[in-house]
Amino acid sequence: MTNPTAAILIIGNEVLSGRTQDANVNFIAKRLGDIGVTLAEVRIIPDVESMIIEAIQALSTRYDQVFTTGGIGATHDDITAASIAKAFNRQLHTNAEAVKILQTYYLERLNETRLKMAMVPEDSILIKNPVSAAPGFQIENVYCLAGIPAVMQAMFDVIIPTLKIGQTFHAITVKSHILENDIAEPLAEIQNTHTTVEIGSYPSFLSPGKWGVSLVVRGTDPDMINHAVAAICKTIQSQGHDYVIE
Amino acid sequence: MTNPTAAILIIGNEVLSGRTQDANVNFIAKRLGDIGVTLAEVRIIPDVESMIIEAIQALSTRYDQVFTTGGIGATHDDITAASIAKAFNRQLHTNAEAVKILQTYYLERLNETRLKMAMVPEDSILIKNPVSAAPGFQIENVYCLAGIPAVMQAMFDVIIPTLKIGQTFHAITVKSHILENDIAEPLAEIQNTHTTVEIGSYPSFLSPGKWGVSLVVRGTDPDMINHAVAAICKTIQSQGHDYVIE
Repeated sequence: MTNPTAAILIIGNEVLSGRTQDANVNFIAKRLGDIGVTLAEVRIIPDVESMIIEAIQALSTRYDQVFTTGGIGATHDDITAASIAKAFNRQLHTNAEAVKILQTYYLERLNETRLKMAMVPEDSILIKNPVSAAPGFQIENVYCLAGIPAVMQAMFDVIIPTLKIGQTFHAITVKSHILENDIAEPLAEIQNTHTTVEIGSYPSFLSPGKWGVSLVVRGTDPDMINHAVAAICKTIQSQGHDYVIE
Repeated sequence: MTNPTAAILIIGNEVLSGRTQDANVNFIAKRLGDIGVTLAEVRIIPDVESMIIEAIQALSTRYDQVFTTGGIGATHDDITAASIAKAFNRQLHTNAEAVKILQTYYLERLNETRLKMAMVPEDSILIKNPVSAAPGFQIENVYCLAGIPAVMQAMFDVIIPTLKIGQTFHAITVKSHILENDIAEPLAEIQNTHTTVEIGSYPSFLSPGKWGVSLVVRGTDPDMINHAVAAICKTIQSQGHDYVIE
């Protein structure tokens, strides 16, 4: 069984300008791993209509599920809903259910500006926002979430039960002070004989002249992971080095 | 004068699997802002040859400069140099200058595996690695850097003097406890009358029921930024709220 695939599209200028360190990719990536979805690509683009349309069309065609964050508020730079409506050739319309949600939350403070947050592409399914009411929406295989991490995370946990899922990914990390280049050849051989797992080699720079390596074995079959990990440990040991399994 | 544009391509499975929180985008984004380069797009893709080729061809055609991180080591999952050679229809060859660098650094520890790090696309210019010797490379308008943040950062500072630059970006942030939706309309008007700056509105969720907003005015013309900031402050004040300028 092949796991379903997904892409993330981060929409907004704040990550590209360097003002904000993105936190949404890592949260969604971990959640997708837990439910057995392969995160195949991430794009970060500015609030520019043509770029949103192009990215949505490319990613929604290529992957099973697409998650967007950002641009669904009520200020002038929030153009995600309108752009995604265009990407799918749908009208942007006022969703009656969303209006009710906003009325209940904002009461007499609901005004023309805030009503913009009830405008979604036709045929959308609303995504509940447990933090600040204004909903996200799903259209086709694209899930549009808020950009603020606390709100995005709450929305993501709402949609999890509705997502296509696969076999959970597991990962075991073998850490050692061996230099990765000293085991590159046997490591390639272990990868070649364990094709259903993915073996990553990540050197880390500890201090000047001092290096370590993290060898990460990831996949959906725990037996195969354990088998590959045992082979890696044996290789490190045969070269007279210690290791730690995490 | 329009500033030159750039894209970042993060190559590697560790960010997509959720194992690693990317730190390279934020570092490069800030540096590009300082030298007046507009970061227009970021993509994060796995170590898959076809995806690297496609992304390099798309981004190098569209933007003035492309920066890649990751996949230039000597283990089996390091396929950046070979993939980028294919993207530009060049041979992957052993660079004599790179061999010398590796010989000087590794001495008798230089072996067949480590020599893989001297293989770059033909017509590449090497990028010095002040941390761990193995060089990056530039081919056409694509700069290929290491994935480890400490190494990538040192390499990036090496190439800065060679990059196309523009007018430095400046940004001023106005912070207030006003709700962004309460000034959405005048804010849109201020954006419309200050088209050479980019005004971003970023609500932040402080605690349940307590919100703040950061209004970021960014651009290359300090006078226009100050003018827009003054208009924003006046709007906030007229609604009886305080603000802080950062």
